[in-house]
Amino acid sequence: MTTTNQTIYYTLTDEAPSLATCSLLPIVRTFTSAAGIDVKITDISLASRVLSTFPEKLTEEQRVEDGLKFLGALTQDPDANIIKLPNISASIPQLKACIAELQAQGYDIPNFPEDAQTDEEKEILARYSKILGSAVNPVLREGNSDRRAPGAVKAFARKFPHSMGKWSKASRTHADYMTDGDFFSSEQSITMEDAGDVRIEFVDPAGNVEVKKELSLEKGEILDGMRMSCKALREFFEETMNDAKETGVMWSLHVKATMMKVSHPIVFGHAVTVFYKEVFDKHGELFKELGVNPNNGISSVYDKIASLPRSQREIIEEDIHECLAHRPEMAMVDSVKGITNLHVPSDVIVDASMPAMIRNGGKMWGPDGKPKDTKAVMPESTYARIYQDMINFCKTNGAFDPTTMGSVPNVGLMAKKAEEYGSHDKTFETDTGVMRVVTADGTVLMQHDVEKGDIWRACQTKDEPVRDWVKLAVNRARLSNTPAIFWLDQERAHDLELTKKVKEYLKDYDTEGLDISIKSYSQAIRFTMDRLIRGQDTISVTGNVLRDYLTDLFPIMELGTSAKMLSIVPMLKGGGMYETGAGGSAPKHVQQVQEENHLRWDSLGEFLALAVSLEDMGMKHDNPRAAILSKTLDAATGKLLENNKTPSRKTGELDNRGSHFYLGLYWAQEVANQTEDLELAAHFKELAETLANNEEKIIAELAACQGSPAPMTGYYHADRESVKKVMRPSNTLNTALAKAVK
Amino acid sequence: MTTTNQTIYYTLTDEAPSLATCSLLPIVRTFTSAAGIDVKITDISLASRVLSTFPEKLTEEQRVEDGLKFLGALTQDPDANIIKLPNISASIPQLKACIAELQAQGYDIPNFPEDAQTDEEKEILARYSKILGSAVNPVLREGNSDRRAPGAVKAFARKFPHSMGKWSKASRTHADYMTDGDFFSSEQSITMEDAGDVRIEFVDPAGNVEVKKELSLEKGEILDGMRMSCKALREFFEETMNDAKETGVMWSLHVKATMMKVSHPIVFGHAVTVFYKEVFDKHGELFKELGVNPNNGISSVYDKIASLPRSQREIIEEDIHECLAHRPEMAMVDSVKGITNLHVPSDVIVDASMPAMIRNGGKMWGPDGKPKDTKAVMPESTYARIYQDMINFCKTNGAFDPTTMGSVPNVGLMAKKAEEYGSHDKTFETDTGVMRVVTADGTVLMQHDVEKGDIWRACQTKDEPVRDWVKLAVNRARLSNTPAIFWLDQERAHDLELTKKVKEYLKDYDTEGLDISIKSYSQAIRFTMDRLIRGQDTISVTGNVLRDYLTDLFPIMELGTSAKMLSIVPMLKGGGMYETGAGGSAPKHVQQVQEENHLRWDSLGEFLALAVSLEDMGMKHDNPRAAILSKTLDAATGKLLENNKTPSRKTGELDNRGSHFYLGLYWAQEVANQTEDLELAAHFKELAETLANNEEKIIAELAACQGSPAPMTGYYHADRESVKKVMRPSNTLNTALAKAVK
Repeated sequence: MTTTNQTIYYTLTDEAPSLATCSLLPIVRTFTSAAGIDVKITDISLASRVLSTFPEKLTEEQRVEDGLKFLGALTQDPDANIIKLPNISASIPQLKACIAELQAQGYDIPNFPEDAQTDEEKEILARYSKILGSAVNPVLREGNSDRRAPGAVKAFARKFPHSMGKWSKASRTHADYMTDGDFFSSEQSITMEDAGDVRIEFVDPAGNVEVKKELSLEKGEILDGMRMSCKALREFFEETMNDAKETGVMWSLHVKATMMKVSHPIVFGHAVTVFYKEVFDKHGELFKELGVNPNNGISSVYDKIASLPRSQREIIEEDIHECLAHRPEMAMVDSVKGITNLHVPSDVIVDASMPAMIRNGGKMWGPDGKPKDTKAVMPESTYARIYQDMINFCKTNGAFDPTTMGSVPNVGLMAKKAEEYGSHDKTFETDTGVMRVVTADGTVLMQHDVEKGDIWRACQTKDEPVRDWVKLAVNRARLSNTPAIFWLDQERAHDLELTKKVKEYLKDYDTEGLDISIKSYSQAIRFTMDRLIRGQDTISVTGNVLRDYLTDLFPIMELGTSAKMLSIVPMLKGGGMYETGAGGSAPKHVQQVQEENHLRWDSLGEFLALAVSLEDMGMKHDNPRAAILSKTLDAATGKLLENNKTPSRKTGELDNRGSHFYLGLYWAQEVANQTEDLELAAHFKELAETLANNEEKIIAELAACQGSPAPMTGYYHADRESVKKVMRPSNTLNTALAKAVK
Repeated sequence: MTTTNQTIYYTLTDEAPSLATCSLLPIVRTFTSAAGIDVKITDISLASRVLSTFPEKLTEEQRVEDGLKFLGALTQDPDANIIKLPNISASIPQLKACIAELQAQGYDIPNFPEDAQTDEEKEILARYSKILGSAVNPVLREGNSDRRAPGAVKAFARKFPHSMGKWSKASRTHADYMTDGDFFSSEQSITMEDAGDVRIEFVDPAGNVEVKKELSLEKGEILDGMRMSCKALREFFEETMNDAKETGVMWSLHVKATMMKVSHPIVFGHAVTVFYKEVFDKHGELFKELGVNPNNGISSVYDKIASLPRSQREIIEEDIHECLAHRPEMAMVDSVKGITNLHVPSDVIVDASMPAMIRNGGKMWGPDGKPKDTKAVMPESTYARIYQDMINFCKTNGAFDPTTMGSVPNVGLMAKKAEEYGSHDKTFETDTGVMRVVTADGTVLMQHDVEKGDIWRACQTKDEPVRDWVKLAVNRARLSNTPAIFWLDQERAHDLELTKKVKEYLKDYDTEGLDISIKSYSQAIRFTMDRLIRGQDTISVTGNVLRDYLTDLFPIMELGTSAKMLSIVPMLKGGGMYETGAGGSAPKHVQQVQEENHLRWDSLGEFLALAVSLEDMGMKHDNPRAAILSKTLDAATGKLLENNKTPSRKTGELDNRGSHFYLGLYWAQEVANQTEDLELAAHFKELAETLANNEEKIIAELAACQGSPAPMTGYYHADRESVKKVMRPSNTLNTALAKAVK
């Protein structure tokens, strides 16, 4: 055990979280100082990333460290301990606004060259491009995924359960999926014995070869190839629609077009053109001219025909209504506005829509605005089965009961893009011929006969992340003394390759006394659910897609939301990253602060992340005080939830700052009351008493500032001193904290 | 290995099977003689049992051996090998007819003294009483149960599948059962550390103790006590009826009043009085006077009110129809005649009705004669869950496919009345107070608070059968190289006691390489079904009730009937009994013989039983020829099924005798063609050729005798010579067989 470098790197990000940090951090440091732990701010805000991109344009004084680069390097350090708050994934308008603000503050950075012409402009554009979009996560997520419901959150859900719809045993709701012709049924998979280059090729009936993609694969890397038959898919859609019509259930489609960016919009498009078959048959030529793209949903038709003469448009609209009349009822996204399930592909996202439906007693909203049983269509069968299993389970056992149910933590394979989610750059809509993967010397590793319109894709999984994933599973099973199940379907080619590795790598660990097993998805979820309703926990150890699905599915049953889950990325190199919450950096919250000086941001995610960060610190550095701080912080968070000291939306009531005060108060009380370390207890006894005695006064001070605009300058790059003043208005609190710092 | 006593004891029974035996046995002996196996007839016919009961009334010549007594003793012999055909379970009219026939034949046996007065008469009645009813099985079933689908039958079902109804994923059908207040939720169980006497007592609220029953328990014996709450049961019925009405599914009740002779009629009665609540509320007093017993079904009302004046009767009938109108639709036994599910308790027997419903796509017949989805109500939850699991499975995977599905052999705990089915003499409808089991010294082993109308029952399981059952499971797993699952619910008190024994006794065997596990009923059936649809077999190792349920449930899916299952009783002492077929001894078949000399009895059961009898002989006596005969007989049976050489119902077509000829032909061909024993092959080559060459002639001879009454004298005690002439009319066949005897 080492005791060096006990530092938590706490990210300073943007908007609401960055304001909250200003209030929370002094409290946190008061406690961590007592355990010899330093909490360092690393600025990865959009403004900071912009400034660090152009050091040559700035004065010595203006220059800032490249926080993201620093953290990127830190991910390779076994001691890394990073708390990562939500940040801005900048769109171009956001980036331009940030640049303008910085320029106004006297930073001589260049404008964003939207239409770059000169070499200089192009170079500037290239630099700015690295800042745009999801630029932070790819740098920091250097590990697999460890997600679980924190104890405090779980206890809160048990005591104050969210609503759950009733399940009828006679419910008609079910999942429907292809039994042949889909990716599952055609999947092939190989493991590279040695590193080597391979080509993905298309061979046409005449024997002409087109290289679609070249890949360099590592030794031990798994490569999958699979095909979705266009013909089978369309037949399947037709059958499901006829069956839904016949049996009188609603028809709904559940895909993930946002993540499966290439394949799922195509699948969605087929659903549109099958459902509205007569419309596309009749007006196909016109639609082509107009540029209608069914992959964007039936809304694409409405958009494109808007320019047509009224009479022509009306004919098409009538034909659309004709389809709606003879097809089954469709689940609605917005029944008031007439927005159906097929309107746009991003409206119904399987990992959110299915849990919502199951939580709602198996019902979705019908065209008449009423909840109804539905056929939930998920063409690709691989993961769809788990939803059918849960539906069966709820029909049999009734809805899950949040007050008694156990929990399902997840250990997900994610590092180094393992099982790359979507495989965008290796997905192809094919012509008729053969898709194959060949080695440099021409050996065919796998091949599929394909027909025009089929979707073919390949998927890579490197070896190192798999090793780490197995280790993480064993660790979690050991640390939480909980059975762990590898969800690996022994009828799936990819999972068979993975199973070999899992069995091999499990040998590297002492699994004595642990309950670790490998089960097919169906068996795994049934086993897990059997335990779940008996209050027992089961770790799901899954691939990347199931990680995503399950960390919504179970939390939504357990907690009513997946936003309260702990999301930990144990780095491949040994460090840890603790992600806080979900849902972005909340610009609307900042607006409320600017106008009324009330911050409704809920720091629950930070509290939870900090607790595991401290727990990890305690273990790694043999620091018992860190462990005590972790346990007491969790208890304090639980108390906070129970006493409903979370921020109100309403100006004048308790806000983010007041919530932080209560966290500090409860935390101090918990530390003072623990008996493992009496010196520590004694140290925080005074703080606990001071805060308790001054509760009324402090709350009054925190409330007093509300109601008028906050005296803050800057948005993307606000003046830290002015922010500090705004976020720490209670002198009583500030003084008490300062006094307690060790 | 011993080679002594290679004898198969073949029972001569009654009616159709006894006629068939006369034709079949010469064929069988032709083959077994080549393996040094003797096939001996043991007469256990009703007539024989009557005669052997009164030896003192008979002349030396008339006296017969007591075949049943002989076989009863034989069950204790490790070498016992008994083929048991269906026999008459005599009713009083049958017994009297048999006595009259014997008296007419000159046997001086006494009349049946129905109203016995004198001591002599009473003694005669006592002797005759031992012959009445199910008198044979209790003597012979000296072992646990081994049931499986024979290879030939399975192959036939795969090639010529029975019809299976389609399952809709949107089906509303489901099983419904109590979640509290039933036997399952109240079960208590203890294992006796030493032998001892216990009393079952009822204690009233004033403390008065009534001894209900005294039992002597063995060391290691398991005793269970459990309670079904009358109040909870009636509330459950009301809820299920309301729910069925609300959700628009039919209501149906599935109990086993025939086997659970005491408890299930009471349960059934509550269903009747809840469904027709208003009728019983309004006319309760009158019904009491009339002697209406709802435990006998709503038909009891119809029967008893038949004597009332028309006007009074009509009011009650109107009230009954009023109930039918506001309650949910009820599943019908006969919709034409208006016979509902609640008419009589013996019409719907769960182990037959549930498989039939599942085979029929989850539908039962509605009042309008149409198949409809239904709520299948099975109040006691213990075993009901398995049906819900199979319903879920069929909704998810569609109907089972007999052409590809695997098989589920059963090893059932049955010997020495283990887990006595029904516990008739230990079931009580209680008053309010306490039911308890106490030892001789007053120690309370278990107790239940009970209310008026509750059903309380105890159930015994001796240790020796459990040991044997575990051994049998290991043997079957080893011999068939098939995974075996002990269906033991770890949340059930009785099964926990049993589990301890199973785990302990499994240590006595070499289970290396075997896949033997213990799973809850739900997990067991899901696991089994997952394998089943992949063509894989799984042995179910179950208690007595599940033995009964599963050996209908799976065979009805696999084979369309449970009558084609092999039913083996491996005796506790090492011998084996092979039961043939089901469905009684078919008096109607005999009538057809008497009138038209055509026997439509199908000897498939005998063929199958004989094959396993020979297989066992081969193993026990290290007799490879017996093994060859077993294998070739199975193959011959398969050929017979495939070529449809089973008896026709129609006089003039192939009957039982012709079917036996083909069995002989195919069997001879199979033996001639096998290469394991060339001497044996050579020996049967001639018979095979003779029979093949004379096929037309023999079939003609067998057909020639049909059409006119069979020249047979006697029914219960027919003259064997005359029977022989009738049953062996083909000289060509008889000569060929005689020539082939070794």
